[in-house]
Amino acid sequence: VNILYSLDLIGTFVFAVSGTLSAANKKLDLFGAIVIGFVTAVGGGTVRDLLLDIHPIGWMKDTIYVSIILAGAIFAFLFKQWIITLRRTMFLFDTIGIGVFTVLGVQKALNAGVHPVYAVLMGMVSSVVGGVLRDTLNNDIPLIFRKEIYATVCLAGGALYLLLDTFETPQYLNEVVTVMTIITARILVIRYKLNMPTLSINESSN
Amino acid sequence: VNILYSLDLIGTFVFAVSGTLSAANKKLDLFGAIVIGFVTAVGGGTVRDLLLDIHPIGWMKDTIYVSIILAGAIFAFLFKQWIITLRRTMFLFDTIGIGVFTVLGVQKALNAGVHPVYAVLMGMVSSVVGGVLRDTLNNDIPLIFRKEIYATVCLAGGALYLLLDTFETPQYLNEVVTVMTIITARILVIRYKLNMPTLSINESSN
Amino acid sequence: VNILYSLDLIGTFVFAVSGTLSAANKKLDLFGAIVIGFVTAVGGGTVRDLLLDIHPIGWMKDTIYVSIILAGAIFAFLFKQWIITLRRTMFLFDTIGIGVFTVLGVQKALNAGVHPVYAVLMGMVSSVVGGVLRDTLNNDIPLIFRKEIYATVCLAGGALYLLLDTFETPQYLNEVVTVMTIITARILVIRYKLNMPTLSINESSN
Repeated sequence: VNILYSLDLIGTFVFAVSGTLSAANKKLDLFGAIVIGFVTAVGGGTVRDLLLDIHPIGWMKDTIYVSIILAGAIFAFLFKQWIITLRRTMFLFDTIGIGVFTVLGVQKALNAGVHPVYAVLMGMVSSVVGGVLRDTLNNDIPLIFRKEIYATVCLAGGALYLLLDTFETPQYLNEVVTVMTIITARILVIRYKLNMPTLSINESSN
Repeated sequence: VNILYSLDLIGTFVFAVSGTLSAANKKLDLFGAIVIGFVTAVGGGTVRDLLLDIHPIGWMKDTIYVSIILAGAIFAFLFKQWIITLRRTMFLFDTIGIGVFTVLGVQKALNAGVHPVYAVLMGMVSSVVGGVLRDTLNNDIPLIFRKEIYATVCLAGGALYLLLDTFETPQYLNEVVTVMTIITARILVIRYKLNMPTLSINESSN
Repeated sequence: VNILYSLDLIGTFVFAVSGTLSAANKKLDLFGAIVIGFVTAVGGGTVRDLLLDIHPIGWMKDTIYVSIILAGAIFAFLFKQWIITLRRTMFLFDTIGIGVFTVLGVQKALNAGVHPVYAVLMGMVSSVVGGVLRDTLNNDIPLIFRKEIYATVCLAGGALYLLLDTFETPQYLNEVVTVMTIITARILVIRYKLNMPTLSINESSN
């Protein structure tokens, strides 16, 4: 659990950075950028905990989350030019965050005693909703709805975790395998530009 | 209650279909379209249950909702061209969904013991919020805010339900009368193009 | 508390008016305008209470809130031309609302027993989220993210309240001092056009 906790903090930091940077293309001030960083980092866990009636909400249990998000936002603000050159590193950390958030979401849901179907959904919610809120506040159609299929990767990862859990895989091993699988899958998806089919009514232009 | 339950499932299916189809005008991929179908179908009930502190949230009590929504989304994806030609049928089912969601919302709120004013509001929330979230995620101003007055129909329907309830109308009869009234009212509204006045500051262009 | 309660009602009224008027630039009908007025007035308190698991949600404890919001929306609809000429008065009441909502938010959070950091955040959430939802529903990037720094004023006001509370300042005095400070600070901010720095990646155009 200790490693998962550390990865959770890293994921939170990276989500805060990416959220804050997303404000750079819009004319947001520092405060707006920090808020969007904040919402990106905690949005998924917050919606998950509200749906599952878990209180206190994840990030309100330990002030370290607020500190880390603030640190991420300020880091993004100070080193934005430099961060941009680190896209690959950022992408890797972002992907780690996605994997960890998914596993944590599934675990929280299982602990709350819901049906496995909801556990898988909550894994995806944990990892996806932050970005959806980020894009909605930035007045964009959520990126995840248009291009990347990482939500599908999260669903598959959550299902894998459940499957391994059913076979009584030790929790620690299950966490490692699932997170690694999600990371690998996402990298492959990006590398080979895999896309979901588009829903278009006027198909002639397809 | 049995009929209401069946109608609830039909309403959920139709809302999922309409939500998924709404993604057709945007460049959403299959996943994005399914998510929007999902949110359209469960959004109203989710917000209602969160506000009333009812847990588990409606659609998390029974996995049939997830199955039906998925079925609706896939149905929309496969038969989109054909569904479009069925606008009238879709509209009818949509209207049934609106009537049923309103009645269920009022009932849930009354069971939660809130003041009748909130019960009427919760009836409207159940039936309207899904579409508002759909449009917000699609980056549109919610349709309901601009054109159609079905929310007003929901409010009136909710008030009617309360009134009949006060006169100790049997619940079953009350459900039938209210749902039928909402359906009739909405059809009349569309048919005669009834609109609410618009709030415009610069009235010269009106 | 009595004065705070009256100011809370005034703040609710003014937020409802401003939310309803915001719909004037969009082509919203009366219903849409009222809903946006409603969401503007109760959005902050609702999100705060959901996050803190406080039930019933603020505005559902006393029907006077619904009445006042409705009155505000109708007032805005009837007297929109006249209200526009009263920008200064509206601004003053709006600022009073912001101060009062912040203090009430901090108090509610402290009563819920959360860490002071969250109390300050909840003060800001109470006062800011309504406007964010208003702008999101209107399909704008939230104003507060771009121009005005009133959220920062709320954070500072919340921190001041906490500080005075630590020194065992009588609650009544603390309320008066904090609200007055927030009002003064916001007026100064507007007057001297103080702004937060903007986060922009391509800085040459700055």
